[in-house]
Amino acid sequence: MNRTRLFTPGPTSVPEEVLLEMAKPMFHHRTAEYRTLFADCTRMLQQLFQTVNPVVTLAGSGTAAYECAMINTIPTGGKVLALSNGKFAERWVTIAKRNKCQITELKADYGHAVAPDRVAEALAADTFDAVTLCHSETSTCTVQDLQAIAAHVRKTPAILIVDGITAVGAIEVKADEWGVDILVTGSQKALMLPPGLAFLSVSEKARKKAETVSQPNLYLSLPHYLKSLADNDVPWTPAVSLVRGLSVALKMILGQGLENIFKNTHAYASAVRQAASAVGLAIFSSNPVDSVTGILYPAGFDDKAFRTAMRKNFGMHLAAGQGSMEGKLFRISHMGYVDAFDTLGAVSAMEMVLRQQGHAFAFGAGVAAAHQELARYLG
Amino acid sequence: MNRTRLFTPGPTSVPEEVLLEMAKPMFHHRTAEYRTLFADCTRMLQQLFQTVNPVVTLAGSGTAAYECAMINTIPTGGKVLALSNGKFAERWVTIAKRNKCQITELKADYGHAVAPDRVAEALAADTFDAVTLCHSETSTCTVQDLQAIAAHVRKTPAILIVDGITAVGAIEVKADEWGVDILVTGSQKALMLPPGLAFLSVSEKARKKAETVSQPNLYLSLPHYLKSLADNDVPWTPAVSLVRGLSVALKMILGQGLENIFKNTHAYASAVRQAASAVGLAIFSSNPVDSVTGILYPAGFDDKAFRTAMRKNFGMHLAAGQGSMEGKLFRISHMGYVDAFDTLGAVSAMEMVLRQQGHAFAFGAGVAAAHQELARYLG
Repeated sequence: MNRTRLFTPGPTSVPEEVLLEMAKPMFHHRTAEYRTLFADCTRMLQQLFQTVNPVVTLAGSGTAAYECAMINTIPTGGKVLALSNGKFAERWVTIAKRNKCQITELKADYGHAVAPDRVAEALAADTFDAVTLCHSETSTCTVQDLQAIAAHVRKTPAILIVDGITAVGAIEVKADEWGVDILVTGSQKALMLPPGLAFLSVSEKARKKAETVSQPNLYLSLPHYLKSLADNDVPWTPAVSLVRGLSVALKMILGQGLENIFKNTHAYASAVRQAASAVGLAIFSSNPVDSVTGILYPAGFDDKAFRTAMRKNFGMHLAAGQGSMEGKLFRISHMGYVDAFDTLGAVSAMEMVLRQQGHAFAFGAGVAAAHQELARYLG
Repeated sequence: MNRTRLFTPGPTSVPEEVLLEMAKPMFHHRTAEYRTLFADCTRMLQQLFQTVNPVVTLAGSGTAAYECAMINTIPTGGKVLALSNGKFAERWVTIAKRNKCQITELKADYGHAVAPDRVAEALAADTFDAVTLCHSETSTCTVQDLQAIAAHVRKTPAILIVDGITAVGAIEVKADEWGVDILVTGSQKALMLPPGLAFLSVSEKARKKAETVSQPNLYLSLPHYLKSLADNDVPWTPAVSLVRGLSVALKMILGQGLENIFKNTHAYASAVRQAASAVGLAIFSSNPVDSVTGILYPAGFDDKAFRTAMRKNFGMHLAAGQGSMEGKLFRISHMGYVDAFDTLGAVSAMEMVLRQQGHAFAFGAGVAAAHQELARYLG
């Protein structure tokens, strides 16, 4: 009778209310009923994104939204300033390369953010069509200083295109106030839904840029989505059941209040960091994000054995490191349908497996530290 | 306590077993559990498509699969022979135009098929990269003679790209035996799932053609999907809950047997055609498909009033005509999770509304005809 707990940084757990909403009988999308549902979702997405601009809903993964953002706004041969510090930030570069853009890459080592001053310098040295970055780099559990970077970009003709896939709904992102022109997120992270939907908000600056670009793709044609959205409609058949779940998830999120969610996410992240420190483990990132924490293994630990024991013995699903960090760290998510006591439980299980697999530490120190830290915010 | 019945030609009703499967707790896709689930689905999709070739699963609508089929296999400036006889067949032309293909269009009036001889003539007159058609043209409820057309195309270097969105799982389509190089379908039709997944089988001839083509799109990059598929994996985050539903729906379909399903679909279509005739209404198409029937309104009938009464009074959801047939006909689907007695009920409701709205006919003749016809196949 053990409960399964997903601490993977997407897919995350889906609330029972959302699962049951999606299990209701199917209905047709070319109806007033669907348009009302979709209009409600769009309005709530705008609140979530903190924007008055249109928020487009796609049936597809985050990569589809990445591509929709770039191909519709950057002309052939256009110039892209790409901030690159992890696997997902690099995806912007991959798409830009496939589309034959001229790319200036501002790299930071994995686990580090790109200093906003470097962005300002690059923007002063050349004129760009777009600047891309990943706000919360899920692969390295690292946050960029989006607000400071956006302040530089908004003074230039470039549009700012941001992966907010593990940021929106987990940490503060103010699309309009900060000046994020295109903000992308997916359904399976802080939005507490199954994967299958992706979203992007599109500023007036980005829409004007899109008007100058002609690109061949139909499914990801931004003008088609924007035109339909004005009628609360969609150009292609939408993922009806997921949109139905979306409406319930967004009501739960906005009902709780974004500030409360950000505070809680921070509390869980902070509790896990304190616990890691208390059991002698180090956090990977120099600029850790609150949505997901990367913890470095003790020397000699086997990633697969550790995560398998966590999963098989205790139902705790953690994520591995990605790319060059594979085997060196594990990741634990703080997004979505997860609470303080799930998090405390993960720390408890982590201590048990660490001890079983030979790590020496003061058993109980992690749970005590997490408990203290959670109480600071919530108790 | 009236039941709602979806007779729209997609989305169709989703079986309760599938709805509840999708309501189970979320799990992660980068796991052995997901790879096993996905491998099972792919194997069953191959049976459904009657192919030994890879069948790719996309998170997206049918339009995404259309685009994936074309952009990965037709070189820039390539030649396309497009059979065009309805709204969906025309979508191939739209995509080909956006990709600057040289297009030869073989048109037939809405409601008619394109004669296979015309295809043979066109193929003799020029060399094409691809031939496109819509097997079951949902907008006009018309079937093309796919087997005869495929026999002509397979003798040429062209690949045959077919929209089987309302064909696969509803009427006979033998991808390998007939020689369909790329066969596309969607989740929300005969597969009895919510919208959000699309599928395409890819023959060796099409894969060889894809090797010669370089295209910029990443999300719809066929080589990425084919490479992952060899490991029962996916390049981008899949729509996990829909794939979970897919496995249950495919087991139901293959458990029933494709031949039985085709026979039943034909029985329901035939019953509705007999009923329409018995109440003095005409079928729209000269070559009607079994998956969806288009019935022309009596003179002076108002489409919206008729379908609204069917929906509000009797819970029967019909589809309107599309494009130039809007207002002239209504459409009733025979695909997926629908049975003889749902169909008989739709005929009964249709008679009641026809009489209420002033059509003169022998009341009861439709139900009697449908009942007789259903008994011919099922009784």
